[in-house]
Amino acid sequence: MKFERFKNDGAARRGKIMTAHGAIDTPAFMPVGTAATVKGMLPEQVAETGAQILLGNTYHLMLRPTAERVAELGGLHKFMNWEKPILTDSGGFQVMSLSKLRKMTEEGVTFQSHVDGSKHSLTPERSIEIQHLLDADITMSFDECTPFPSTEKTAAESMRLSMRWAKRSRDAFKKRNGYGIFGIVQGGIYPELREESADALKKIGFDGYAIGGLAVGEGQALMFQTLETTLPHLPEEAPRYLMGVGKPPDIVGAVQRGVDMFDCVLPTRSGRTAQAFTRRGTLNLKNARHIADPRPLDPDCACYVCQNYSRAYINHLLKCQEMLGPMLITRHNLQYYQELMGGLRTAIEAGELDRFSEKFHTEYTAGDLEALE
Amino acid sequence: MKFERFKNDGAARRGKIMTAHGAIDTPAFMPVGTAATVKGMLPEQVAETGAQILLGNTYHLMLRPTAERVAELGGLHKFMNWEKPILTDSGGFQVMSLSKLRKMTEEGVTFQSHVDGSKHSLTPERSIEIQHLLDADITMSFDECTPFPSTEKTAAESMRLSMRWAKRSRDAFKKRNGYGIFGIVQGGIYPELREESADALKKIGFDGYAIGGLAVGEGQALMFQTLETTLPHLPEEAPRYLMGVGKPPDIVGAVQRGVDMFDCVLPTRSGRTAQAFTRRGTLNLKNARHIADPRPLDPDCACYVCQNYSRAYINHLLKCQEMLGPMLITRHNLQYYQELMGGLRTAIEAGELDRFSEKFHTEYTAGDLEALE
Repeated sequence: MKFERFKNDGAARRGKIMTAHGAIDTPAFMPVGTAATVKGMLPEQVAETGAQILLGNTYHLMLRPTAERVAELGGLHKFMNWEKPILTDSGGFQVMSLSKLRKMTEEGVTFQSHVDGSKHSLTPERSIEIQHLLDADITMSFDECTPFPSTEKTAAESMRLSMRWAKRSRDAFKKRNGYGIFGIVQGGIYPELREESADALKKIGFDGYAIGGLAVGEGQALMFQTLETTLPHLPEEAPRYLMGVGKPPDIVGAVQRGVDMFDCVLPTRSGRTAQAFTRRGTLNLKNARHIADPRPLDPDCACYVCQNYSRAYINHLLKCQEMLGPMLITRHNLQYYQELMGGLRTAIEAGELDRFSEKFHTEYTAGDLEALE
Repeated sequence: MKFERFKNDGAARRGKIMTAHGAIDTPAFMPVGTAATVKGMLPEQVAETGAQILLGNTYHLMLRPTAERVAELGGLHKFMNWEKPILTDSGGFQVMSLSKLRKMTEEGVTFQSHVDGSKHSLTPERSIEIQHLLDADITMSFDECTPFPSTEKTAAESMRLSMRWAKRSRDAFKKRNGYGIFGIVQGGIYPELREESADALKKIGFDGYAIGGLAVGEGQALMFQTLETTLPHLPEEAPRYLMGVGKPPDIVGAVQRGVDMFDCVLPTRSGRTAQAFTRRGTLNLKNARHIADPRPLDPDCACYVCQNYSRAYINHLLKCQEMLGPMLITRHNLQYYQELMGGLRTAIEAGELDRFSEKFHTEYTAGDLEALE
């Protein structure tokens, strides 16, 4: 795995990651394909929105259909018909948020499946093995996601466990051309812990560095603060990935602070709850005011959905609980996110990121066009 | 609306219907787009399967979003982004099967919406008006769907009411270039009533003739019998449409008896209940025996789904209740149906329909390939 940087604009970086399954222009947004599918989308449609890499979930896939089954069937790319790069998380976060009856030791974590109550365990070594079986282009090291809020003591202990697990993850990872492993900085909202964590990871040495444990309720201000105190301790020459983020304004701010990669369920999950992202903020398509509106979701959007369907039609689909409603909003949302990333990349290239950001915020907070007419 | 016949093979006919929104090669299968969407499919994907015409439901659309709203938004084609022909049913069948507190008079029927209990009425004149507002290329006359089983007396009274409504429907229909109206033969399973109904409709004069009141539980033998006693009484020069049919063997048998058009929810509804149609009969993709099967749904199928996904993957999607499972099976099923129709058309052109039918039945009843290996 290689990372090239072409251009800086302030702390922001314009780059490209080369993997076994192709290149990723950064800053990049990764749609989430939890159970080997981006919900409601064909993989070709995901690619059409501009996505160059997907995120897959180790926790979900180890339970169903199992990593061994995916490997038997030719790996995750073939299984789900997605030929471009895939990053898999390590399972650590989902074990904490989804599974039952967890027991954590130095060795790893045992837990019960949220699906059928069956018993499983994850260790750094097993997580890396699973991600290898899935054939992830980018593997994430196994960590404990520190709860928020946590005392400094708890955050420190949790982070140090994650650092020992990071070393074991690195050791378990099999080097192959075009494949890489990222370490994950933890430490909660405590700058000195984040610095300690970043230093520990640098010492181990990774192909990229993720910032974990954010977007868990701390709010944008604390998140940005933590980025500002953490990112300077990470090597310039490796990609930085802010996990689980976020809303469009979070992404813009994080790119300005030097983040290269993002993933978030927001565009897809919002698609299933009738929320569309537009250049003027979000719209709830279930709202009765859309019932006779012939306009597209976002008049400034060139996506397939905005070219072919009215708000009135999508409102109708949602009212009738037709699958096509979530399918269309998801597709638009994913393209909105990709176009946002494209805009950020172009702005960095042109050295105009601050201007881009200002324009973005003005428009995004201007409210729905209806209010303007 | 025009209908050309190129070729007969026994009672079967190879033809083409020309409408305001394009041509339909017959025998044709119409996917059902109840609420202005073929469930789980983009309209472009429906067209890709080979479909040249969709069916829309007057009952559903009059309740949501209402015919007036659809007209305001440019008609059903524009509303749902489907530029090809649309046939709408008259609402009669759904009023009987879905609505509550119906009251039928000579004038028409009043009923409560199954969605919100609101009161509505349908008369022949209102049904035709709604279909005009929707901009249906093919309008169906308003009828009462005779329940099955019915005594001859009930069937006769019901059929004669439908014939009086057929006359009123014809009178209410506004002639326009490329648009047509079909009459619907009723009479239950009673040959003399079917003949009387066919004669009554011929006397009124329609652009096409539908056979209604079948596929309601009478079984294939009685259905074929009724076709055999009914079709000879219909004009050769107009298309014949068997409503709500059916399974692949029903369609093959009905084409052999002279039917030109079909609609059925089976390929789409089956898609949502994990049933795939294949040249070797049906498969239940939820079945655990597919869990590790790398083969496509139908190894003889050239559709997008069979080219790109394994049974194991689709089984996985269904287990995880992922939308993509129903989406993929629906797409395959619709293409299966269209390829069946294409095969029937080619066979009629070649004068080889009997041979085609024999081969179809042998394969379709042979069972899943797994049993053969």
